[in-house]
Amino acid sequence: MSQQEYPRYPPDVSELQLRDVVVSAQDWSIAHGLAVRPATSFVAEAQDPSGSLAVTAPITLFPSPFPRECFKNALAIQQSYNELYARIAGEEAWLKRVVEELVSVDEFMAELWTIHQKVKEEGYVQDLTLGLFRSDYMVHVEAEDNAHSSSLRQVEFNTIASSFGGLSTQISAMHEFLSRSGIYPAESAVVIKPDDLVQSKSAAHLASGLAEAHKAYGSGTTSLPKCILFLVQTPERNVFDQRHLEYPLIYDHKIRTYRLPFSSILDHTHLDASRTLIYTPPHSPSTPHEVTTLYFRAGYSPSDYTTPASWSARLHLERSRAIKCPSILTHLSGAKKVQQVLATPSSPHLSHFLPASRASEVLKTFAPIYPLDTSPAGQHARSLALDPETAKNYVLKPQREGGGNNVYRTKIPDFLRGIPEAQWPAYILMEMINPPPLQNVILRNGEVQKGGVIGELGVYGVMLWRNKLEQGEHMGVQEVLVNKEAGYLLRTKGDTSEEGGVAAGFGAVDSVLLVDV
Amino acid sequence: MSQQEYPRYPPDVSELQLRDVVVSAQDWSIAHGLAVRPATSFVAEAQDPSGSLAVTAPITLFPSPFPRECFKNALAIQQSYNELYARIAGEEAWLKRVVEELVSVDEFMAELWTIHQKVKEEGYVQDLTLGLFRSDYMVHVEAEDNAHSSSLRQVEFNTIASSFGGLSTQISAMHEFLSRSGIYPAESAVVIKPDDLVQSKSAAHLASGLAEAHKAYGSGTTSLPKCILFLVQTPERNVFDQRHLEYPLIYDHKIRTYRLPFSSILDHTHLDASRTLIYTPPHSPSTPHEVTTLYFRAGYSPSDYTTPASWSARLHLERSRAIKCPSILTHLSGAKKVQQVLATPSSPHLSHFLPASRASEVLKTFAPIYPLDTSPAGQHARSLALDPETAKNYVLKPQREGGGNNVYRTKIPDFLRGIPEAQWPAYILMEMINPPPLQNVILRNGEVQKGGVIGELGVYGVMLWRNKLEQGEHMGVQEVLVNKEAGYLLRTKGDTSEEGGVAAGFGAVDSVLLVDV
Repeated sequence: MSQQEYPRYPPDVSELQLRDVVVSAQDWSIAHGLAVRPATSFVAEAQDPSGSLAVTAPITLFPSPFPRECFKNALAIQQSYNELYARIAGEEAWLKRVVEELVSVDEFMAELWTIHQKVKEEGYVQDLTLGLFRSDYMVHVEAEDNAHSSSLRQVEFNTIASSFGGLSTQISAMHEFLSRSGIYPAESAVVIKPDDLVQSKSAAHLASGLAEAHKAYGSGTTSLPKCILFLVQTPERNVFDQRHLEYPLIYDHKIRTYRLPFSSILDHTHLDASRTLIYTPPHSPSTPHEVTTLYFRAGYSPSDYTTPASWSARLHLERSRAIKCPSILTHLSGAKKVQQVLATPSSPHLSHFLPASRASEVLKTFAPIYPLDTSPAGQHARSLALDPETAKNYVLKPQREGGGNNVYRTKIPDFLRGIPEAQWPAYILMEMINPPPLQNVILRNGEVQKGGVIGELGVYGVMLWRNKLEQGEHMGVQEVLVNKEAGYLLRTKGDTSEEGGVAAGFGAVDSVLLVDV
Repeated sequence: MSQQEYPRYPPDVSELQLRDVVVSAQDWSIAHGLAVRPATSFVAEAQDPSGSLAVTAPITLFPSPFPRECFKNALAIQQSYNELYARIAGEEAWLKRVVEELVSVDEFMAELWTIHQKVKEEGYVQDLTLGLFRSDYMVHVEAEDNAHSSSLRQVEFNTIASSFGGLSTQISAMHEFLSRSGIYPAESAVVIKPDDLVQSKSAAHLASGLAEAHKAYGSGTTSLPKCILFLVQTPERNVFDQRHLEYPLIYDHKIRTYRLPFSSILDHTHLDASRTLIYTPPHSPSTPHEVTTLYFRAGYSPSDYTTPASWSARLHLERSRAIKCPSILTHLSGAKKVQQVLATPSSPHLSHFLPASRASEVLKTFAPIYPLDTSPAGQHARSLALDPETAKNYVLKPQREGGGNNVYRTKIPDFLRGIPEAQWPAYILMEMINPPPLQNVILRNGEVQKGGVIGELGVYGVMLWRNKLEQGEHMGVQEVLVNKEAGYLLRTKGDTSEEGGVAAGFGAVDSVLLVDV
């Protein structure tokens, strides 16, 4: 069935037509900030030391078909997912059992957990937490199934630094522009119907989420002006994605935002006697601000923690009265190990957190995930992973965030045998998702690549909740202030490096064209 | 008085503060299309053959002070200027006398006039003309005068390809953003009061002007879809400025626009039997369009006419039924010679075109301009120009559009003696304008330059009128359909190359901070 899954795609266009779309897209993208700073491999630092150049973000020239029912379903279950992860982060006793299995094999998780324990000992002073989440899915079709079998399979759930919400709004607007203004060739109109394009309002929704937290922080403990602090990596090529959240905060919500490099936290912030976080802008030392909300666009990767001071800085922030997006416990809840525990076949955990009807909806989106520990399920998984014949249906993923180190299919047995068995529990084994075949055109640094692609749908969620704190311990969610689905992201990349066409590994931002399959 | 003319400016900011403003401006500008394609001296073509890179347009980091009364006055007289130039373009007999003095010395003007004559012979088929004008001024202060002496002096009047209306809207929005969001240091708030910043709505106004012409074109002579054609140079670094007019046409007015290189006119357009202009997009040969309006963003400079075919193309367009922005007669009306004839002291021409009260308002903005011909006024001017002592108050300008070849002050006598006297009438002599001293900071390709600057205010005008045609001759304006002031541009450049600081010649887009002086 697979070739009939999607309409013939992308539209059959001549070289001249494609060139016209490229020029229109390159101009529209810069005119609307669908851009990134160029990689140093494209523009060396010495050529543009102040970073004034920009380039169109990697984009697809056409929106990608996506099954309408799967898309609706992904949006519909986002509030359940928001609640699930808030409840996980809110129930320390449950999370502790999962994390404790990790700390011996994952130093990063261990450090995060240590920070939580230190703050707990002292007592948390902020009971509100903000989550700007993103649940990522692929469409899965069974190899020998019929055409009605498309289903959603969750790839991962992001609880920290869920990115591309800014650019997603722009790429969906660009595809709509190209479609409605007649820049796509007339022949494309048969498949690209403007009414089937979905606009992502993620930038506005995520900014609103930050604004809700800022407001919920209340009057604070000082008379200083208030601000939201974006914690960022430096240099940050994806800066416009973040700026598209800052601008609505400033324009629509009248909230002052500052960007602080993750490496400079201790230089420019301090806690007062009541652990209120004070930010003193280095360029404006006479105007300190009370920080209401900390938005982490850094700190999710071990590479952000270059010195012991990086960990002191994270502890310093966690101790503060500012609302964290996310808190350490929420950050930890995004561990792949949590996903695996929830998705292990016949696990009781999901129904611990969600009412039965919603748990079953969420469960349908899980791909089978196995631990590689010494439990019975883990033993079963080890046999699947070490046999090349069964391994070919799986992917091996590190528990840690950040990606990039996945081991695929037949490479799994040798990889596992090459590392000490004691390290195996740091990985999970996940059934591979079989996405329907699809072609699209990716534009990257002005180069056009056409070929087979795979799309990954992310659905954003905004969740602001109050934790029940008893003697420093998180005893569950006490009050939900905001729980919203917040737009979507479609990221599309080459399907494999072997087949030529679109280079694997380079994702492009994309938007959804709904199709009935 | 001169040092007291403007408040101390720009605000006294530290290096760190300036750096923060630069970063904010560089990000905002790309996020909002306040950009240009980089010069090949910055990014070589081989590095980015598809032209995917962009850079912040040259901008001032702060808005520039401008006398409130002068600014109000410049806006207030724009409708009179629109009418003046429409009437000049509409009255062939008057224009002919001016142009005929030029044709012997200016081959470019001669060719334009020849085109008009050919079309006139055949008979014009379109009686509507669109002008997107821009009247440019500087503030003039008398050297020994008191502080209340600021007045407007017109530099030139543009009747073709009046540019920067797109970027002007963006830079005024950026300065407002930096001001209202508190990115300018708190100390600047004393001089940069948000309420004194003037937003330029030029992009929307100019787009509306094109839309009015498109609408006034009516149902046309074919059943083809209709479009507006932008005639452009290639490559065009200032493409985003133009795109900011295209997007509102598409989004707000639902009008299809196409960009056609000036050098490709004959390849992709033709006239049908009723001289309707048909554009066939090269990438979409099956969807020819009827062109309602021709917007010239090319064709104003001799360098656009590289072959005899370029002139055939201009004739071809002028013959067509499309509304021209501008027509050849309107293009010719913008000759500096026209400005000179109007501004020659005690000339009767202004009052020929405008009622007395409005003529006197316009007259106040003229700097004395003299011909260098053999008339009595010309003889007087020659004596002023050849004496170094009097020449130092003047600038010598070629009659032609395009600029760049002005001769200043004490260099005038030697320059004139170095060319044949027969060529002198190709130049005009204009009293130098003494702008008040001002400092600002210009950002260009990431480099910051601080120093003395000169601002030039442009006021846009939209004028759509119907000419009275009798046996092919233009007998005056029959009907004014639209006459509007259409926003402004402030362009700021270094005051001289000798004094260091801001490099001369490199203009930056700027916005107006109203001050009472």
